[in-house]
This record gives sequence, C-alpha cells and structure tokens, in this order.
Amino acid sequence: MSTIALLTDFGLQDHYAGVLKAVILRINPKVKLVDLCHQIPPQDILQGALTLKSAYRYFPKKTIFLAVVDPGVGSKRNAIILKTKDHVFVAPDNGILSPLATEGGPKQFFQIINERYFLHPVSNTFHGRDVFAPVAAFLSKGIPPAKFGPELKRISSVNIPKPRWDKKSKTLLGSIIHMDRFGNLTTNIEEKDLADYKRGCVIRIKDKLIKGLRHAYTDAENGQVLAIINSSGYLEIAVSQGSASQLLNVKKGETVSIIS
Amino acid sequence: MSTIALLTDFGLQDHYAGVLKAVILRINPKVKLVDLCHQIPPQDILQGALTLKSAYRYFPKKTIFLAVVDPGVGSKRNAIILKTKDHVFVAPDNGILSPLATEGGPKQFFQIINERYFLHPVSNTFHGRDVFAPVAAFLSKGIPPAKFGPELKRISSVNIPKPRWDKKSKTLLGSIIHMDRFGNLTTNIEEKDLADYKRGCVIRIKDKLIKGLRHAYTDAENGQVLAIINSSGYLEIAVSQGSASQLLNVKKGETVSIIS
Amino acid sequence: MSTIALLTDFGLQDHYAGVLKAVILRINPKVKLVDLCHQIPPQDILQGALTLKSAYRYFPKKTIFLAVVDPGVGSKRNAIILKTKDHVFVAPDNGILSPLATEGGPKQFFQIINERYFLHPVSNTFHGRDVFAPVAAFLSKGIPPAKFGPELKRISSVNIPKPRWDKKSKTLLGSIIHMDRFGNLTTNIEEKDLADYKRGCVIRIKDKLIKGLRHAYTDAENGQVLAIINSSGYLEIAVSQGSASQLLNVKKGETVSIIS
Repeated sequence: MSTIALLTDFGLQDHYAGVLKAVILRINPKVKLVDLCHQIPPQDILQGALTLKSAYRYFPKKTIFLAVVDPGVGSKRNAIILKTKDHVFVAPDNGILSPLATEGGPKQFFQIINERYFLHPVSNTFHGRDVFAPVAAFLSKGIPPAKFGPELKRISSVNIPKPRWDKKSKTLLGSIIHMDRFGNLTTNIEEKDLADYKRGCVIRIKDKLIKGLRHAYTDAENGQVLAIINSSGYLEIAVSQGSASQLLNVKKGETVSIIS
Repeated sequence: MSTIALLTDFGLQDHYAGVLKAVILRINPKVKLVDLCHQIPPQDILQGALTLKSAYRYFPKKTIFLAVVDPGVGSKRNAIILKTKDHVFVAPDNGILSPLATEGGPKQFFQIINERYFLHPVSNTFHGRDVFAPVAAFLSKGIPPAKFGPELKRISSVNIPKPRWDKKSKTLLGSIIHMDRFGNLTTNIEEKDLADYKRGCVIRIKDKLIKGLRHAYTDAENGQVLAIINSSGYLEIAVSQGSASQLLNVKKGETVSIIS
Repeated sequence: MSTIALLTDFGLQDHYAGVLKAVILRINPKVKLVDLCHQIPPQDILQGALTLKSAYRYFPKKTIFLAVVDPGVGSKRNAIILKTKDHVFVAPDNGILSPLATEGGPKQFFQIINERYFLHPVSNTFHGRDVFAPVAAFLSKGIPPAKFGPELKRISSVNIPKPRWDKKSKTLLGSIIHMDRFGNLTTNIEEKDLADYKRGCVIRIKDKLIKGLRHAYTDAENGQVLAIINSSGYLEIAVSQGSASQLLNVKKGETVSIIS
C-alpha cells in the first residue's frame, strides 16, 4: 500500500486540508494518508522546509510527500517533483524542497506541466487541490514522474541561516530557527559545530549564560534553563518542565552564541 | 473500501473527535476515516454548513459525511440522513445540511429513530458518539438509510446571508461570511453576481476601495489589498503575502459592497 | 487489521506527531492509525490520563494505545506496557496509565528494556519516536509484551483529585478537572456521588448557585448557567449555547461544592 504524507500551511480550521485528502482518495482510494503537519505558519517556506527535513527520513520507503506552502500560487512559479532513491516529493518550486536536494544520493527533478493530471478548472488560489494533490495521487498509482513534465537541472533554494564564526570576539554566532509547542528553542547550530567545545562550552542567549550541555531535560532542576542536543541533532535551549520561549521571552531569529 | 468524512465543532483538544473515530472503527474496522474539519467554531451551524458545501464534491462517490455541529443535542431536534445520488450525510436536523438540499439532483431525507443502531446508554450531551457515529458506521457497512427511520418531506434550513441590490445607491451589498487561516476574507458574492461588472468593478470594504479583480495573489504587490475569485467561486478580499483580516481589522459579518 | 491510537502532548505545529506515525508505518505498513488527541497541555500527565480514561473503552478490542506525555524523557523513569483483557497500552511510567490500572479485569505490566525494538541511536529528548512508537508498532505485528522486558508488579500513579465531604459545612467539595473546547467545566464529582441529592441538589461555583441538574443543555435558556451529568458520567457546569469558562471566568482547579 502506498503512502502520501501531507505537509501544508493550511491549518485545520478551514476545508483546505480535508479537500486535499478528498481529491487524493478520489483518484486512489487505496492510498494511506498521513498528516505530517498542517500548521506551518502561513507562507513560511523556510519553516516548511525545516519541518520536512526533520521528518521525511522516518517515513516508509516510497512515501510520496505533498508539501504545499505556496505563497506564489497562481503566479509563474513552477510546480515540481523531486525523486530520490527512497522518496518522492511534490511541491511548488519555491525552495521548500531545497534542503532535501543537498542531501546525499542520486536525485531527479521534474517540472509539472501535464494538465491531464490536474483537476479542472484549475483555480488561481488553490493549486494544492487542483495540481499538487492530484499529481501526488497519480504518482501513488504508479505513474512515473517523467509523465508529468520535463526533467529540470535545478530547483529554487530557500536560505537557511547558518551559524558564522566571528573572528574578533572568537564567538560562534547562531540563531533560533524554530520554537516548538513546548517552548523549546531550536538553533541552527549542529552537534558537529560544537565538536571543539562539547560539554565545556558556554552558550549565551540574550543576557543568559548557559554552561555546558545536558543529557536530558531532567538533568536540570525544574524551571532552569539548559542546553541540549535535540532529537534532530541541533543545539536546543530548553527549560526543564517549562517553556524557554516564555521564560526568556525569545522568538525565532534571536541570536545564540557559543562564547567559549 | 468505504469512506467516512468527519466534520465537527469538537476541536482537537478533547477526546471527542477521537472517540467518534473509535466508535466507528469498532462497528466497521475496514472503513477509511478522513478528517474534513474539527475546528468549526463552537455551535456555528452556518460555518459548518458552508465548510461542508465547499468540500463535499471533492470526496469519492459514496462517501458518508458525519456532520456534527449540534448545539441542540439532547433536545427534541431530529437526527437525519440525507441521501443524494453520490453521497450520504448524517447530521442533526438544524440546517447544517440545508445548502446541500438545494443542490441539483434527486435526494431523500430520513429521520434517525431506530435505537438498534445507537450506542447505549444514549447520553444527553454527546450524540456524536452515541447516535451519529454509530449510524454512519452502520451506513458504511451497507445498512440502507430507510432502516434507520421514516422518510421525511423536508429538513430544517440555515439562513445563508445573500447579497442584495440597493436601488438607491445602485450598490450590491454583500458581507464577509468566512475568514480563513491566512486572513483571507470570503464574501457571499459569487462570481456570477459580478458578471455585469467583472474586471471593471470597484469593491468597498470599510473605507478601502479596491479596483478590479486580480488573477492571482501575486498580481498585487506584497502587502497590498486585492480582490479575487477564490477556489470556491466566491469574491474574496485578500492581501498579497499577508492577512486581509489583520490589515483591515475586519471580522465575519462586515459589509462588502460593489459600488460600480 | 490492528489499530494504534495516539495520545500525546506534542501538538500539531511541529513534526513530532507526524514522525510517530512515520516510524510506526515503517515497521508495520498495514496498521490503522487513529489520532485520539495530540493537544494534551504540555507535560500535563493528569490531563493525559483523564483523556485516555474517557476514551479507551470506545476503541475496538485489541487496540494498542500509544500514550506519550513524557516530561521525564531521557531520565531513569521506566517505559512500560500495560496489557488488559481488551487493550494494550504503551507509555512512560509516570502515572498516565494509572487510572486504567485500577479498572476491573486482569492486567499485566511489563517494563520496556529490549533495545532490539528501539530506533537507534536513541535520542534523549524524543522517546516517542525512538522507543514508544517502534514498540507499539512491533506489538501491532504480534510480538508479545513479554518480549520487550520483564513483568512489573506495579506502576507509578498520578494523583487524581477526589471530592471530599466537609463535615462542618455538610458540603461535598469537588473541583474542576477539565475545561473543554466549548468552555464546559468537568468536575471530579461523579453521578454516584450525587445519588443522595440528585435533582434536588444545589451546586455552588464561585458566587453562583445552580439548582438541580438538567437533562440537556437546551433545558436552560440561552446564556444561562446549568449543571448536567456529562457523557463521561461526571458533573459538568455548562452554559446553554455559550461558554461556562468565559461567563464564570473559571479555570481548572476551581472549587465546586454541593451544598445541599
């Protein structure tokens, strides 16, 4: 049984996410639908890209991902398919797939232009329903990616902020790229960036200094700010049994520096 | 494989939506469950009716819709089944199905009174669990609608606000009937209502004048207010890459007029 | 077809809930996944326990419940399996399963220690993904609970507040233990606790006195505060067509007393 995983910024308060599933089931009633996430902040391509990147490797092989964060809907932006060794991704070509394009292994990109696989009439505001969902459904029925349009050499990129080394202050400067439901703050600093510091590092966020990494949230006392390598391999600022976002009054974009 | 689509105002923070699915699967483990929407505002029958109307046609034929927005639960209001050529709907008789009753094609209404298909004891506060879910599940197993109770001549109606022509000001007066997650504002003015104006029309919302319709959100500059025909065929007020609801500080019910 | 029901405090805005499902489907592509609830307030073990208790009995026999509210993730707390006659539960041993452990019927507890069934490397912050989801998936494939680790004599308990009789004031003192999406307030007072009062009782919440129980929300006028036995058998304070939580400005923990 093939699986389609859905990631969108449609939220759950409207008919949008439900209609995506309806369209897919009408074309392939046997497919397994899995909601990966529909709560990407509206039009936040970077957040969609990061969420997809954190999740896709855990899905079964041959899973088809429908990734619709699409502020350019109705414009001339391309619709694309990305085929890797293990998975297939369907999305607008706005960078949401770019983190996957830099991961290892052979891959192919295709433009989606074959209107035979669209829902007609195609609206100008809901290509999730009229283009991406039916294409994902036909892919799940075994239609090969090349049937949807010509192969592309490259796709658009989204700019993922990277930590940078500040020579003068001898500090690694990173930033908060995600805040989760628990108020945990994910930075763009990876475990490998900390290889030279490791347990001895000192981390600064706003006026707060955090000494060293913990192994578990419970290694700190309740209410205490701590740093930890999270389940995606990134440095995370958290509060034991609490919300770092609330306690530190921090949002996405805030600077996090490794000062020694 | 038969499909049951669920639309409720239960939200996702309680056990209610999960229990609906549990009850259905216990009666018919093979059915396919699809969440259409559980975030209808509490007791908002009109919003439930409009969401169902926007979505149902995209589902596979023979889909059974479980539509539970039920402020009258435990009272004498009827529970009903609506059978159309392509679909079956199960709901309280409070108007939530009325927009479907005026769509074309033959249809039949049935009252649900056969307690043999209920979960016992029947509570007075959760007929979703005790009446509607089991009835939908038994329908999905092939029990014909007539087994649940007698045929009805008519069902209750919900009042969907219609735009009206104001002779004196020569203005078509409509209103905002839905605000989606993106802050897009759906009016009750349909594409056909604009046939005489079309691209030359001027739209007023509060003090804002919008000239003409756009083909895509991206046809306007970022942050600019625009008017567009949305994916359900209604006039929509939007902001390119932003939220019209926030920018205009507008809520449901606000007047939208076509002034020329 | 076996069913896995998911209850977590992961919310729906991150990749966490989606990844649980991914991990399960990779191990057992044929399993049926049902979201019971992902919106348990962060780290609120009691709320998770109460939600599970309200819902589990409606699921098909042999359903496996994955219950992950896990503030102690990465610490020395046990991971456990609870097997009852009809169901299997997988959870951290922090009390979330304790209300089920006191329900009737034979039951067995097992510690989860067999790393063969884990996802490797096991992170310190996401045992939902690395321990509980794969264990649930392997259980759904028929691996017997005893394969995951040794039997346990007892499991941890969560303290569910109970109503108490105040001799001096001759009052039964209860409290609000849940507030649902509608603003309905569930107390910890059960129908049987009211056996001596029944329709003649007077209920106090803050300065408000409520006389007797209603049979249905609509038995009171719109906007009026009422008391009712809810669908889980508990005394509930509600407002007809409105929100008791808003009208009374009440939160969880508020005292509710039966004064005669």
